[in-house]
Amino acid sequence: MNYSVIVEVTLRPGIADPEGATIERALPALGFSGVRAVRAGKLFRFDIEALDAESALASAQSLSDRLLSNPVIEDAAVRLEE
Amino acid sequence: MNYSVIVEVTLRPGIADPEGATIERALPALGFSGVRAVRAGKLFRFDIEALDAESALASAQSLSDRLLSNPVIEDAAVRLEE
Repeated sequence: MNYSVIVEVTLRPGIADPEGATIERALPALGFSGVRAVRAGKLFRFDIEALDAESALASAQSLSDRLLSNPVIEDAAVRLEE
Repeated sequence: MNYSVIVEVTLRPGIADPEGATIERALPALGFSGVRAVRAGKLFRFDIEALDAESALASAQSLSDRLLSNPVIEDAAVRLEE
């Protein structure tokens, strides 16, 4: 069966996020106040062939840890698309 | 009140996705078969000050459309973090 998977790759807590910090600094000048703790990450979506949802998620997690993220500084969260 | 918001920026359907296509081409050689339709996007998370959840989402959507995405080729989906 084919499962649609969504992977959210985010920087681990404590890792510096220059992209998020730059966005946060730019916002007040652009008219948006009260925005804090901006963190930037990556998002992937793909279809994966597997026997059941559990093995689809397991393959997707292994793929994400090995190829889509850097486990030293990033977390990859995998879920099925609704 | 402070609301945690997650923004998913994805390429619109039909827009070419060279990053996703490159990942998809690389996967079989790396031992992952049966993966199709890879699409890459961006993910942002931030805290926003607002009177209620509805206005937090409205501000976040406007911010996302104007600053975090290119509405010509991208969609920005905003949701509250659980």
